[in-house]
Amino acid sequence: MALVVQKYGGSSVADAESIKRVAKRIAAAKRAGDDVVVVVSAMGDTTDDLIDLAQQVSPLPPQREMDILLTAGERISMSLLAMAINNLGVKAKSFTGQQAGVITDAVHGRARIVDVVPTRVRETVDRGQVAIVAGFQGVTESTNDVTTLGRGGSDTTAVALAAGLGADVCEIYTDVDGVFTADPRIVPAARKLDRVSYDEMLEMAASGAKVLMLRCVEYGRRYGVPIHVRSSFSNHTGTLVTNEKSEDPTVEQPIIAGVAHDRSEAKITVVGVPDVPGKAARIFQVVAGAGVNIDMIVQNVSVAATGLTDISFTLPADDGAAGMAALTERQPDIGFASLQYDDTIGKVSLIGAGMKSHPGVSAQLFAALSDAGINIEMISTSEIRISVVTRADDLDEAVRAIHTAFDLDADQEQAVVYGGTGR
Amino acid sequence: MALVVQKYGGSSVADAESIKRVAKRIAAAKRAGDDVVVVVSAMGDTTDDLIDLAQQVSPLPPQREMDILLTAGERISMSLLAMAINNLGVKAKSFTGQQAGVITDAVHGRARIVDVVPTRVRETVDRGQVAIVAGFQGVTESTNDVTTLGRGGSDTTAVALAAGLGADVCEIYTDVDGVFTADPRIVPAARKLDRVSYDEMLEMAASGAKVLMLRCVEYGRRYGVPIHVRSSFSNHTGTLVTNEKSEDPTVEQPIIAGVAHDRSEAKITVVGVPDVPGKAARIFQVVAGAGVNIDMIVQNVSVAATGLTDISFTLPADDGAAGMAALTERQPDIGFASLQYDDTIGKVSLIGAGMKSHPGVSAQLFAALSDAGINIEMISTSEIRISVVTRADDLDEAVRAIHTAFDLDADQEQAVVYGGTGR
Repeated sequence: MALVVQKYGGSSVADAESIKRVAKRIAAAKRAGDDVVVVVSAMGDTTDDLIDLAQQVSPLPPQREMDILLTAGERISMSLLAMAINNLGVKAKSFTGQQAGVITDAVHGRARIVDVVPTRVRETVDRGQVAIVAGFQGVTESTNDVTTLGRGGSDTTAVALAAGLGADVCEIYTDVDGVFTADPRIVPAARKLDRVSYDEMLEMAASGAKVLMLRCVEYGRRYGVPIHVRSSFSNHTGTLVTNEKSEDPTVEQPIIAGVAHDRSEAKITVVGVPDVPGKAARIFQVVAGAGVNIDMIVQNVSVAATGLTDISFTLPADDGAAGMAALTERQPDIGFASLQYDDTIGKVSLIGAGMKSHPGVSAQLFAALSDAGINIEMISTSEIRISVVTRADDLDEAVRAIHTAFDLDADQEQAVVYGGTGR
Repeated sequence: MALVVQKYGGSSVADAESIKRVAKRIAAAKRAGDDVVVVVSAMGDTTDDLIDLAQQVSPLPPQREMDILLTAGERISMSLLAMAINNLGVKAKSFTGQQAGVITDAVHGRARIVDVVPTRVRETVDRGQVAIVAGFQGVTESTNDVTTLGRGGSDTTAVALAAGLGADVCEIYTDVDGVFTADPRIVPAARKLDRVSYDEMLEMAASGAKVLMLRCVEYGRRYGVPIHVRSSFSNHTGTLVTNEKSEDPTVEQPIIAGVAHDRSEAKITVVGVPDVPGKAARIFQVVAGAGVNIDMIVQNVSVAATGLTDISFTLPADDGAAGMAALTERQPDIGFASLQYDDTIGKVSLIGAGMKSHPGVSAQLFAALSDAGINIEMISTSEIRISVVTRADDLDEAVRAIHTAFDLDADQEQAVVYGGTGR
């Protein structure tokens, strides 16, 4: 008998029929002998609908009130799911983030979980009942105020709860069959991964893969919670995210886990920066001061005659306006000539733990892009990742070229197992 | 500077526009110098929509989960209202029943408030901010579970909170201009009452007047909270429910406060009951055991030859099936001949504190009905109320006849001030 934490996203509980279907799956797991704790997101478009309502009454609503509003979403889905499970003859009780002991900091809208004290969840499981917990939400310890964890926060709730309960596995149910070697919408020959390491999954999430959120994987790695990403529309085994890629030491590890891409970044180039110590640091202080996270940085070789250089960096396009405004305000102080903004870039990343011991990977990647006639604008690397920036228009082709060059293509297309909802 | 608790019902916050309108009213009260605490119901049809959803996933949902589901409604309205008020430049914070310290017993679906500990509400008011509190909901002290107070519970929340805060007045905003001498939909000449006593309001609520719930008035009387029933669609003074009908001792009190009616009752007649001691008690024990509240009772004079009698009583029509089933099951034990069920009855009640010292009131009422050709089937009285049961078809005419006979008709119709929404 295992203790399993299952997480169902909004598309899995979009309406009454979906809720009843998920309830059957949960009841079956319980009847099969497992202890089951469920984390659930708000139904379908509920969160977007609530945000719309908020916009109608206030252009800039206080974030504390926004969190109270949005947490109504999981309240509805979790109680309905508990009702549906009880209706199948399996006892179930639902709990808010507060009742489940999900303690967060007080940063409304993107709070971080600081502790999980799942006393009532544990009691419920010990009584042989299913505990349903609201994803995405927590409570501040000091003020008893409701917080939300930001988009994708339900995954983090699930993994944090699994860690707090010492669960055997955290199953993340989604509308795809698992983690793929690339986005099957771009690479029809993408293959589902059976296993992937936390480190690789972290790099993939940070590089634009949307199947799991970064913080969820971080939490899983820190507490060693095995995460099983699988479809709520089938019974296929999905992808296991864990410390070890394979428990069988005789199987050689593949060098590459997959290719991720990201279309959501933009590039700012600071033109004509005096090439004296401290100027680059000053630029990034100003940008960081505006709350903007910088991703990749390139500093051109300085032109000796002028003593000036250009510095380019990428940042989330959503933060583009804030970054530009912050730099413009400090232009006299920093002393650069001008700013250029470019949001027609794309980023493609190759990720694989085996890369560390295979020095030829970068060269192979650059050759693949060159053969495809794709220009590389920026490069950044970690121990297990190589990322390059291309024109946005070249991105899909770049993903496919790299996927093929590293022998990731499946023998036949697996698109049939992707997106079981037809969404 | 006064401390005012304002309560807005679902029709006053039915959509974004209504919420903004109510926000303006609250901001105006705050700017006029009052401390303002607001209790709000769920938006428009939200509660009914949530009940519909529950029915779709389970025919008989656990009441604990139902309460969690329904309390999502006030979460949405209260946070939106707080946003809208902040948008007008007045600081406002919203609080759930739990955060506002509304402690209830654990009877899910119709919990009773056992204590109000409004620490955070008080702090918010002391900081010069508006506190918005979710109506209709509370929390159990022992288990930290969410409860609901039953339909109309938001009024009770408001009055209980006003008592807990020692507020100067509790304003109940509704879609009518106050408490009327009769339902203006039946009696167009009904007049708005400027004042009415707690006792009279209790009898009116118990007799079918829907403007205030019985428990809300009980709470107001127990803690001496003045309740001002008024329209959220106008600035007219409404009806003040208080201990004294008039603070001006030179003004003679009117004998009668108003005429209430109730269409929601049914009558069960137990035919052929052995007229021996204990049989009537046994019947009412059986009915009470089924959780049914009995209203009026008539026992016919026993026929000496047979030693049998008939006993009739009224009960909420919603409980009719339960009452009949309980009696049928115990027929052998009680030993009656048969049961008759009649849900085509109506009840009209005349209420007035002045009645106590005016013995002719009953005679005048019976004469009025007799003149109108209306047959009286049952009679019950309290110190300040006379109720009679008629055929349902005669009910409207009975209300009008009594209203006229006791000189309650206004000089001209006031229907214009009723139902400002046009609902």
